[in-house]
Amino acid sequence: MNKIPVLEIFGPTIQGEGMVVGRKTMFVRTAGCDYSCAWCDSKFTWDGSAKEDINLMTADAIVQRLKELGNNTFDHVTISGGNPALLKSIDGLVDLLHENKIEVALETQGSRWQDWFVKIDDLTISPKPPSSKMETNWTVLDDIILRLNQHHRLSHTSLKVVVFDQTDLRFAEEVHQCYSSIPFYLQVGNEDVEEAGVDQVANRLLKSYQWLIDQVMTNDRLNRVRVLPQLHALVWGNRRGV
Amino acid sequence: MNKIPVLEIFGPTIQGEGMVVGRKTMFVRTAGCDYSCAWCDSKFTWDGSAKEDINLMTADAIVQRLKELGNNTFDHVTISGGNPALLKSIDGLVDLLHENKIEVALETQGSRWQDWFVKIDDLTISPKPPSSKMETNWTVLDDIILRLNQHHRLSHTSLKVVVFDQTDLRFAEEVHQCYSSIPFYLQVGNEDVEEAGVDQVANRLLKSYQWLIDQVMTNDRLNRVRVLPQLHALVWGNRRGV
Repeated sequence: MNKIPVLEIFGPTIQGEGMVVGRKTMFVRTAGCDYSCAWCDSKFTWDGSAKEDINLMTADAIVQRLKELGNNTFDHVTISGGNPALLKSIDGLVDLLHENKIEVALETQGSRWQDWFVKIDDLTISPKPPSSKMETNWTVLDDIILRLNQHHRLSHTSLKVVVFDQTDLRFAEEVHQCYSSIPFYLQVGNEDVEEAGVDQVANRLLKSYQWLIDQVMTNDRLNRVRVLPQLHALVWGNRRGV
Repeated sequence: MNKIPVLEIFGPTIQGEGMVVGRKTMFVRTAGCDYSCAWCDSKFTWDGSAKEDINLMTADAIVQRLKELGNNTFDHVTISGGNPALLKSIDGLVDLLHENKIEVALETQGSRWQDWFVKIDDLTISPKPPSSKMETNWTVLDDIILRLNQHHRLSHTSLKVVVFDQTDLRFAEEVHQCYSSIPFYLQVGNEDVEEAGVDQVANRLLKSYQWLIDQVMTNDRLNRVRVLPQLHALVWGNRRGV
């Protein structure tokens, strides 16, 4: 079946992280994940708590909803999850968005390949570090990067690793070393995805960000890199749907 | 003469703004500017207050100093000012950095052309909005963009406009409309470049950033854009040399 399980559609807002940080975009968040990261900030996409909110939608219905919300004030859509790479049916949505002259960004952990990856304008592969309690399948990840390269898509691809501690940092080094030609982003982790109070969350995250900057600046295995916070969390704290 | 008037060399740190936001980089800040923006955050580069600190340095001496400070922990240098585009002598520095396999970023307001612009890896042209009290020479700006295009350098170029208010926003729309194919960045202005207290500065700037996001999200003349804060000001407040 061609329908897509959707949990949230919202925007326009900014993309808060990664290769197109700051980009005006709309978000489509799909349900379902093959991972269950310890610190996931969207657990509702896979822990069953938002099961009732899942909408099975066609690509047409999704684009219609995006236009209702964003009118003519957007030309970029970010597909996020969960892990949207579980869904073969994203293919038709990407095509329809492109027909509407809308660019498409996607984030996935790199645990599954989909043929439609080669159509994504801004593809973020985000292997999960040890603090997540997940384990990277390097064979699958290698295969994904190889296929993207074969299709000349590396200029549309980036790698991103979230870092909470020194062990994560070693993992980030390993990923960067394996695929050194691919633009590499280090992102500061959010230690408390429940904390209320926007200013408090921002000040805490900025301290963590400063820690990560300090670590990377003195590390000669992490030179050709970008170190970023999550801008949406700085602006809106742990709020959903922004 | 081939020497470069240098006011600061520091890093490695992150590039806090614009097209390579978050990038690990070293900074070389040159003295002298043809502008005197009302809200300039580096007035010491042109108001005479740091005249005694200017070092006339050869490209060799600059690269040597960069290596003393950054050892083997960097592969990117940002030349900033002031307006480095006043200096023909930057040419040799760019060549020497490239010979050392170091990428070069540069920011300038677009008031002067230099032939070495075509060698810059990450070139930010930042026309100043009305709140700066400066006036853009559109003939010069047009000519710069035309030359960069003739040299196939637009993929290494971005435009950035700082926005404090609605009038600045209209100016940003105008710039984006004139050069719609060039990656466009809107950057939130810093209303108080003297305020002490890192948390206070961060919280104030994040409120201004949210205001700018709100303005851009509902504006259909600003779709293919990125909206960013100055990350270094969020982390270190108004401190110099970071």
